Amino acid sequence: MKSESVEMTFDTIIHNGTLLTLDADMRTLPAGWIGIREGRIAAIEPTCQAPPPEAPLRIDAAGGIVMPGLVNIHTHLPMTLFRGLADDLPLMTWLNEHIFPAEARFIEPEAVHWGTRLACAELLLGGTTCCCGGYFHEDAVAEAVAETGLRAVLGQGVIDFPAPGVPDPAQNVAHARAYVQKWRERSALIQPAIFCHAPYTCGDTTLTAAKRAANELGVLFQVHAAETRFERDQSVADKGLSPIARLAQLGILDARTLLAHCVWLDEADIDRMAGAGCGVAHCPESNMKLASGIAPVPRMRARGISVGLGTDGCASNNDLDLFGEIATAAKLHKVAGSDPTVLDAASALRMATIEGARAIGLENRIGSLEVGKQADIIVMDTQAPHLTPMYHPASHIVYAASGADVRHVLVDGRLLVRDRQLTDMDINAVMAQVNRIARDIRETQAG
Amino acid sequence: MKSESVEMTFDTIIHNGTLLTLDADMRTLPAGWIGIREGRIAAIEPTCQAPPPEAPLRIDAAGGIVMPGLVNIHTHLPMTLFRGLADDLPLMTWLNEHIFPAEARFIEPEAVHWGTRLACAELLLGGTTCCCGGYFHEDAVAEAVAETGLRAVLGQGVIDFPAPGVPDPAQNVAHARAYVQKWRERSALIQPAIFCHAPYTCGDTTLTAAKRAANELGVLFQVHAAETRFERDQSVADKGLSPIARLAQLGILDARTLLAHCVWLDEADIDRMAGAGCGVAHCPESNMKLASGIAPVPRMRARGISVGLGTDGCASNNDLDLFGEIATAAKLHKVAGSDPTVLDAASALRMATIEGARAIGLENRIGSLEVGKQADIIVMDTQAPHLTPMYHPASHIVYAASGADVRHVLVDGRLLVRDRQLTDMDINAVMAQVNRIARDIRETQAG
Repeated sequence: MKSESVEMTFDTIIHNGTLLTLDADMRTLPAGWIGIREGRIAAIEPTCQAPPPEAPLRIDAAGGIVMPGLVNIHTHLPMTLFRGLADDLPLMTWLNEHIFPAEARFIEPEAVHWGTRLACAELLLGGTTCCCGGYFHEDAVAEAVAETGLRAVLGQGVIDFPAPGVPDPAQNVAHARAYVQKWRERSALIQPAIFCHAPYTCGDTTLTAAKRAANELGVLFQVHAAETRFERDQSVADKGLSPIARLAQLGILDARTLLAHCVWLDEADIDRMAGAGCGVAHCPESNMKLASGIAPVPRMRARGISVGLGTDGCASNNDLDLFGEIATAAKLHKVAGSDPTVLDAASALRMATIEGARAIGLENRIGSLEVGKQADIIVMDTQAPHLTPMYHPASHIVYAASGADVRHVLVDGRLLVRDRQLTDMDINAVMAQVNRIARDIRETQAG
Repeated sequence: MKSESVEMTFDTIIHNGTLLTLDADMRTLPAGWIGIREGRIAAIEPTCQAPPPEAPLRIDAAGGIVMPGLVNIHTHLPMTLFRGLADDLPLMTWLNEHIFPAEARFIEPEAVHWGTRLACAELLLGGTTCCCGGYFHEDAVAEAVAETGLRAVLGQGVIDFPAPGVPDPAQNVAHARAYVQKWRERSALIQPAIFCHAPYTCGDTTLTAAKRAANELGVLFQVHAAETRFERDQSVADKGLSPIARLAQLGILDARTLLAHCVWLDEADIDRMAGAGCGVAHCPESNMKLASGIAPVPRMRARGISVGLGTDGCASNNDLDLFGEIATAAKLHKVAGSDPTVLDAASALRMATIEGARAIGLENRIGSLEVGKQADIIVMDTQAPHLTPMYHPASHIVYAASGADVRHVLVDGRLLVRDRQLTDMDINAVMAQVNRIARDIRETQAG
């Protein structure tokens, strides 16, 4: 049986695997193949009745699972530098005695560069092909990410305090505008964005000016919101409004806004978010480790809100393994809701792929295996004791696999990880640079 | 500087790593080495001022972490056969429509053998050197485990229903006695035990007879207890006692009893358990996935109860990765208690090693790196992006590492995993056998 696509030519063929498409029908194709041309998925054949055509690059999935790359929609890439620097502390001790001083002293462009490179290596090796987040010195972040081939939405941080690279808070939005303008047309893989830190660190003027800039420039606006009970209570006490109500009143909630965390919500907040069409980045492991709380994810999803998954930064989590977040999300909401049917494997997997893509406005380009989408694809090795036997591939991805099971990774059709090795980065050199920076950080902690 | 131990001869030396001893002082030795002789730790040198002596086997930890092997104190090894067979279902649907029928039809000695071999492979590759659990056909389980070199406490299942290998429930305790007698002196690595399924599936007569048999034979008595709210409520309704109160009244709680789960406890239950000195197997991921609840681990630990970690069986979890349980435990109790200082990294790590060993009565033999203990040791590879930089080794083990980072594994001094490969098992042959059995299981599910 021939189809039109079989007669086409491809740059790359991926064959001999089970395709988990994550498309609208959640098709699983146990013996299909994918043809890639010019960075996009050009064909998906559901069977191998005819052998797949020749191509310059043929990737044998070896009976494993072929699926869209994971989409990590909330992280702070350079914070790999502070991985495990301080754990198990009250939030304010952690921030004021460890993270803020370390950031003030060590976050400059070169450190940001190496911390970001390390983060990209970890993300790629763990099967994440697109990340979204923000930090300071975001121009240096974007330069570093662009060198790796990872897809990313990268927001310049905006905060009403002196910050790394932005010593005068009066310049925070102007600084972010200039960054976005520089990166807007520069790379097909990097989408600049604006990242206001939080309602409690940004005044109304800053929040509205930053959102206006994001809208004028046509980019995503990100903000931490309703992460802790303290933040919610303080907002109600100071402003008479929940953080979400305040953002709504300022006109900030719309389909180009991504809210990170959203733990402390009431029904009116969820109404506002659902009505506005904004996306949510759920970070279950960070929320657990910092004891922030459990976000009402099943309620948000029931209202049609796009909820994706994020790892948060490595200072709080302490890794960038989105497989861990998938498993944790699937289990956490079952126990929180006393219902083992909540957030089934398929739903958790969608959050980590197509729903995350939707939350950041990229659902037409990535997040599923569909003809015409960009070829952001991972191949999982399932020939391992912990993935044997395999009754349901999606179940294994959610409840048994980890980032260590990722064998090959393509972004935009480029093979960036082959047989668990980065194809285009000297990871030992990157680790050596990060270790050099970390020696200085360690000394200040001891002192 | 010479010490007495340096002049001794060793079978194996492990050097060039950071030793996480998990001893009473929680010593971390950044440049020590370990000498092993006749299966035991014969020397721990805290520094490498003198180079480590020659030995027939020298293991270079390559700058990684050397620590005691993990102790998984609650699992059901042969249930790897049902890994991911049915997820995201109400408990009774899952049990009655999937697990019980599959067990009734497929659990016979040969299937148990291959399922157990697969479980041992997964445990060893993931850094677990000792497991404790129980099932039916436990003689076949013990035979299979003994072939692999893993250390294990293995309980023959006792239940007041016809069970695989024990069609007549009237014979359940006699069957368990015969199994224990057969295995009591047979292997230094296998400790037989008796495993009553649960208070709700075993009557008073069975529970007391089984515990009496365990005491007479000098072995551990295991029982699931207080796992679900339904179990607790039913016990109170039927017996006027919580499950723990009933076990206490029957004289079953003592230092040779291990209770699995212990989710639904009141203060009086915790008093009874603390007074009796029984151990607890905490299975956070199973309790989350089945929506059973969150065990009051910090309260139990505050009362001095030995709480170890277990994965539970692969039908419910769906893997045997104890690193995942460590991370989940550390984070779950923070969010459950709204306190980020609860169950810090060191505590979570102790639960997975020395406290688990104590809960099953093996704390004098395993669970820490100390001279005189059996050489159950793992070497972690930390030269990876997700473990870079490293400020605190224990933090990385708890919050960033996974079973995939385990490079070498020794049990009783024998190197069973070298460079991530099993040294003494044809894992492809084992997976092929399990896949063959799984094909039959899958057909019955579809039909």
